[in-house]
Parts: sequence; C-alpha cells; structure tokens
Amino acid sequence: MIYADTVVANISQLVTCAGEKFRVKKAMKEVGLLEKAWVAGSSGRIVFVGQENDFRARVSLSEKARVIDASGLVGLPGFVDCHTHLPFAGDRAREFSLRIAGYTYQQLAEMGLGIQTTVKATRSISAEELEAICLKRLEIMLLNGTTTIEAKSGYGLNRQDELKQLLVLHSLANRQPVSIVPTFMGAHEIPPEYKSDHGLYIKWLKEEMMPEVKQANLAEFFDIFCEPTVFNLEETRELAVAALKLGYKLKIHADEFVPIGGTELGVELGARSVEHLINITPAGLEKLAGSRTAAVLLPGVSFFLMSDKKAPARELIDRGAIVALASDFNPGSSNLLSMLFVLQLGVFTMKMTVEEALNACTINAAYAIDRQDEVGSIEVGKSFDLLLAGLPSYIHLAYELGRNPVRTVIKQGKIVVDEGQFKQ
Amino acid sequence: MIYADTVVANISQLVTCAGEKFRVKKAMKEVGLLEKAWVAGSSGRIVFVGQENDFRARVSLSEKARVIDASGLVGLPGFVDCHTHLPFAGDRAREFSLRIAGYTYQQLAEMGLGIQTTVKATRSISAEELEAICLKRLEIMLLNGTTTIEAKSGYGLNRQDELKQLLVLHSLANRQPVSIVPTFMGAHEIPPEYKSDHGLYIKWLKEEMMPEVKQANLAEFFDIFCEPTVFNLEETRELAVAALKLGYKLKIHADEFVPIGGTELGVELGARSVEHLINITPAGLEKLAGSRTAAVLLPGVSFFLMSDKKAPARELIDRGAIVALASDFNPGSSNLLSMLFVLQLGVFTMKMTVEEALNACTINAAYAIDRQDEVGSIEVGKSFDLLLAGLPSYIHLAYELGRNPVRTVIKQGKIVVDEGQFKQ
Repeated sequence: MIYADTVVANISQLVTCAGEKFRVKKAMKEVGLLEKAWVAGSSGRIVFVGQENDFRARVSLSEKARVIDASGLVGLPGFVDCHTHLPFAGDRAREFSLRIAGYTYQQLAEMGLGIQTTVKATRSISAEELEAICLKRLEIMLLNGTTTIEAKSGYGLNRQDELKQLLVLHSLANRQPVSIVPTFMGAHEIPPEYKSDHGLYIKWLKEEMMPEVKQANLAEFFDIFCEPTVFNLEETRELAVAALKLGYKLKIHADEFVPIGGTELGVELGARSVEHLINITPAGLEKLAGSRTAAVLLPGVSFFLMSDKKAPARELIDRGAIVALASDFNPGSSNLLSMLFVLQLGVFTMKMTVEEALNACTINAAYAIDRQDEVGSIEVGKSFDLLLAGLPSYIHLAYELGRNPVRTVIKQGKIVVDEGQFKQ
Repeated sequence: MIYADTVVANISQLVTCAGEKFRVKKAMKEVGLLEKAWVAGSSGRIVFVGQENDFRARVSLSEKARVIDASGLVGLPGFVDCHTHLPFAGDRAREFSLRIAGYTYQQLAEMGLGIQTTVKATRSISAEELEAICLKRLEIMLLNGTTTIEAKSGYGLNRQDELKQLLVLHSLANRQPVSIVPTFMGAHEIPPEYKSDHGLYIKWLKEEMMPEVKQANLAEFFDIFCEPTVFNLEETRELAVAALKLGYKLKIHADEFVPIGGTELGVELGARSVEHLINITPAGLEKLAGSRTAAVLLPGVSFFLMSDKKAPARELIDRGAIVALASDFNPGSSNLLSMLFVLQLGVFTMKMTVEEALNACTINAAYAIDRQDEVGSIEVGKSFDLLLAGLPSYIHLAYELGRNPVRTVIKQGKIVVDEGQFKQ
C-alpha cells in the first residue's frame, strides 16, 4: 500500500512529460498524456500517478489528506525557468521608449543607458530592498505557473554587490515557494572600473571571487557572456576552465549577437548548457546537436528586441539537440516573467510544436539546470510540483493567447496558488 | 459646484487620451498625461478630471460617495475592442495543431476544417448555450480591461442562426458590464448551401435578411469580407450600397490576403472603417490616409497565423490615417481576448510607439465604431470607463510583457473588477 497526504483527483487531461531525463527529437513530440488522471503525494513527493481504479486499489489516504478535484482541468508539471537574471534593481522603461523612438544602442550607451543603468541601480540598494523586489517578481512567476527557476548574479560586478545578489537568492529560497538554483555570473559584463583592463578583472574573478563564492556554497553554476565586446573566446575559455576546476557547473551565453565559438567551446568543455544561440553557426549547431549540452533558447529576446532573427529551434530539435526554453527575464532585452508566454513564443515565433515547447519548458529545462531527477515531470519520486489550468486541452496552452489560465499551483505538495484565485 | 458619487483619487499617472474625437499623426503621439489625477463621476458619467486642489474647490461628494485610492497606479480609459467575432461556438484547436504540424489550408479545408467547422458548431447550439459561452469570454475581456466591444454575427449564415447570434448580443448587453456594438456580418462567407450561386445568397441578404435585421434594430453596422474567394469587389460594392441604403453604417474586411480594391471602395463609400489591410496597396494606402475612414489593424492575425507579413501601421500613421487596433477575436486566425496583448503586438510587431498603440486601443477604436462621443477617453461627459493598472508608468503597459496588470475596472462608474482581485 502507498500512503498519501495529498491527492489531485480526476484531472481531465494530465501532461506528465515523464520518461527520460531529457527529451530529444521524437521524444520531444511526446508529452506523456493521461486522461482522467490521479496524482498523489506524500511529504511533498509524488507517490502515485495513474487512474482511479489503480489509485483505489493501491493508495491509502492519511486521515487529514487533502483531495483536490481537478475535473475539467488540464494538469502539467510546474514550469522550470532555467535562465533568469532575477536579482536586479530598477527598470529600463525609458531606454525602451527611446529604442521604440528609433535611438540606436550606440546612442543609448552614449546617454548612459544600457546594462550599466542596471548595475548602478543594483549596487545602490540594500539587500533587503533587493529581496523585496525579487519577492514580488517570484510571486508573479508563481501565479503564472513557474515553480523552479535558475537565477544569475551579474549586476553587481564587484565583491560586495555580487555577494549581495547571491545572498538574496539564498534568503529568498526560504521565504517563498519557488525553488531557486543560483548561478554566479560575475562574467556578465566588464565593470566600468575595469574597462581598460579585462585581464585584471578576469584575474580577480578567478583568484578571488570565484573561489570565495564556491567556498561559501553560494552558487552551483558559473555563467559567462561570450561576445566579442564582452568576453572573447580566449577569455571565456580561461574563465570556464577555472570555473570547472573550482567545481562549478558551466553555462555560457553564446552566439547571441556575434558567433565567435562560444557554443563549440561549451560543448568541448562539457558545459551543462549554452544559451541564446540566435546566431549559432552550422558548425556550432552540428557540434551541439551531437552533445549532451542543453541548448537553452530565449525567444523573449528576439521578440523584445523586435528582431526578425530567431534561434533555429526547428533545426536544433530535428538534429537532436536537447532544446529548453527560458524567459531570460532581465530589464534590457526580455522583460517578461511568464513561462506560458515563453512557451507560446516558442510555438508562434520559432515553429516549435506545442508538445516540443511543453517539454522545453519542463523536463528539458530541468535538465539544463541539473534538476532532471527532481522536477520537470510528473513521476513517482519527484517533487510534487503540479499546475492545474482552466483549459479544454494542453493544446490550448498555446492556442489561447494573451491570458493566464493557471488556476492552481502545487509546489512540493502544497497548494501555493489556490483554485479560483483567477477567474481568467 | 459639481456633484459626484464616485471618485478615483490620486492616480499616480493618468492617461486620458482626451482631445480630439480621433487621433492622427502627431496627435497619436500624445496620450494626455496627468500626474496625481483625480477623476470623479456621477450616475456613470465623468464629471471631473483634474488635480486635488481643483477637485476640492469644485466637486461636492454625495453622502454615500465611493472614493477609490489609486496612488501607485496608472489610470487609463477602458479598452475598446472594435473588431471581434464574439458569438461563435466550439474552437479550432485541432486545426491549430495540424497547422503547426505543417498541413496547408487547402489540406485542412479538404479535411472539413476551417471556418465551416465554426459555422456548423454555431448552428448546432441553442441561443442559451451560445449566450453562456459568450458570457465567459466577456468576463475574461473585462478582467483584461476591455469595457466596450464591437461584435459580429457571421457564423450562422442562415436566417435562424444569424438572428440567434445577434439576439444573443442584445441579451448579453443587459447581463454583464461590457458595452456591445452589434454588426451584422451575413457577408462573412458564402454558406455551403449557396456555394454554387453567390448571386442567390447576395440577393437573399439584400432583399430579406438585411432589411429584417435593420427593422428589428439588431445591428448598427454591416460588414463584408472582401476577398476574391469570398465576396469579390463587385459583390462587395453591391452589398455595401444596399447596406448604406438601409441605414447601416459600413465596415469592410479589406486586403487581408489579396488586395482587390476593398480599401478604395470603403473610402469611396464612406465606410466607417476598413479592417485587416495586411496587403493594402500603395494606392489604397494613399486613399485611406486622406480619408475619415478608420484603418483597423489586427496584429493578432499575423501573429496567430505565424506570418511575417504585417499591416503597414507605421506608414498608415505617418501618412495620416486614423489607425485603430483590435483583437479580431475568432477561433481560426486570432484566438485572443486581451487588448493589452493587442497593444503589445502593435508595439513589438508593427513598430507603433506605446502612445500610438494606446490611442489605437481607446479613442481611435471608439471612432471606428462611432462611439467617440461616449467612450475611448477620460473626459467630462463621457462614460466613466476607467482602468487602474499596477504599473509604474503607462510605458510599462508594453514594457512588461506576458501578464495582466489590470487591478480595477470601472464601467459606467461602477467597480466591475475589484482592486486586489489580481496580485499580478
């Protein structure tokens, strides 16, 4: 007999995304459908996934067990947002307006706008203030069905403020339901203080900051922005090798604007993921497709920057890459928190099928942050992270645009967004 | 002294869209900003728009007056959705899946899919069932800030079911807060029964249905789908002239796929609006820009059909056309209910500024359905239709993607969506 303390009964259509630890090609087309499904959990873990007869035969409910009726609803794993820049201050709405009005990036930089605005703003506030801002964002994410995120530092770019960002992430993990996987991204940009000497900044990162952050166990991943104007290929390699030596798992922002070999380097070094890939080369694509490095695509960026150039999702999938989708939430190039909107952008702007986009926002996203054994699918043993959406079928997750159909969010077996909170 | 029964106090930033009855060129860039604004109403009408000192000096509150504190919020006119196909049954999610999988329209039509699916579904249900479906949709629209819509028949295509659609619209007007402007669109498609004889269908429309609908006062507008495969230019002219004679105001679906002169005809006949315009010709654009016929653009269609081809919003505005935006809510080519998403599509996919998109979703949309004296701006004398959004500035209406920031919706002076209902 299986014991359970929480049951979601009678889910009209459950998308489990269960099966392998990541999905490629044919498997990306399968979402593990189960009609009239029952999911039961105990102490935050899934202990049963199946149908009523089987449930009645095998599961015993504790006296105070909570039973949620999900008839008429679609169930799916909580979304995993595997690339966010969550902890920053301020916004860039003014820059956004000027961009719409036709100002170029160069002009905006000359006006003191761009990423430096966010570095200044993030440096200028206290950890408490930053935490309050992030709490609000996490609440919106949760209301839209995101139950696990990766979050990067990289707007401090000095000891104090990078640590501030990372400590805020750790504090947040205990204050709200969304799980947070922290990434140290001191290599997000060259700080103004080091503009004339990249080498000195890299040396400081390698010899001081990276060991300190690792020893304090403040970050699991290290991420580098590989672009000719930020960290070139040689610098990226130097940092990546140092990160791996220190025990970080590796991510690389690669081929966003100018392809200089970031993808190939990531594959060579066994990076867990390479991200963006808007301008990936055929050679990079081939290398990536044959590897176990995840391809994290961020369709919000092309949309937000109003660019016709998109990452080649179709080709990556068809060639066998492990494709994940993420929000890239940040104030300059992707100001969005909803993974449902990301899923829809995957379908409507990158020609992914609904099934592929669903796997890319759940199980493959979990793989991209090494949480494939913990979240990303509805399977016995995994964290009980489940969404209920007021939709006739999972296809409607993409087919119904412009609204949030998430009615109930369950995280680690607890109802954290309640049914009926939204009428939409 | 002005008497008021409802006050929205201390709106951090109010966008009034006040001024002219429609906006062109330079005026489209102005949204009528007022900081720390107070808006007061009496019996559903706006009686005061200004700031606190002026309010205290001039406005007297009734004893039971309701005062809403809007500090920290952005205020704007309720959205006007001036082109919807609200009253239909069923959905086309299966067709959508097949389209993603690569089936062509021709193949889908051979499988019995396309608009005929919706005609069959709409014919097959009762008025009560149709009304229930529409009520749900109107609730979602309202939660997203839409307070006035235009709604078309055109999925009945026979006497009984066109009347059913129009009667449902009239019944709905009394059952929920959103104002509905009804359009008779018997000329949406040739029904299967008349496929071999367009002339006979047109004759029936002109001689029987159009007079009957008009006499029963069931529709204010008449709309025609002008496309080579639906109603050609000559047929469109015949129907349009008949509609005007009967006292209908005129709308034309023009230049959506193949430009055959629908825009030019609309301008020539003084149509209130021409709609879609994805493939408008330079000659059509010039004629339209110099006219008082509104250009209703439907960016959801290009997005939903995953087409790179967009209506030339920028050129239309720059040349002086009265540009409005609308959802074109329908199950086949634009399955979306949120005007905020439409506004964002205007900005992100058609290069409109936030200000232009705001005017296009409010005052110009009101003009497109001849409601410019009633709704679409926050001005003394107009219906008290006001939204409060949890955003730092109106720019954030576009800058923050993928969520619904509408906190409070006031329609005709009544709070119809309550503050705090949404935490997003």
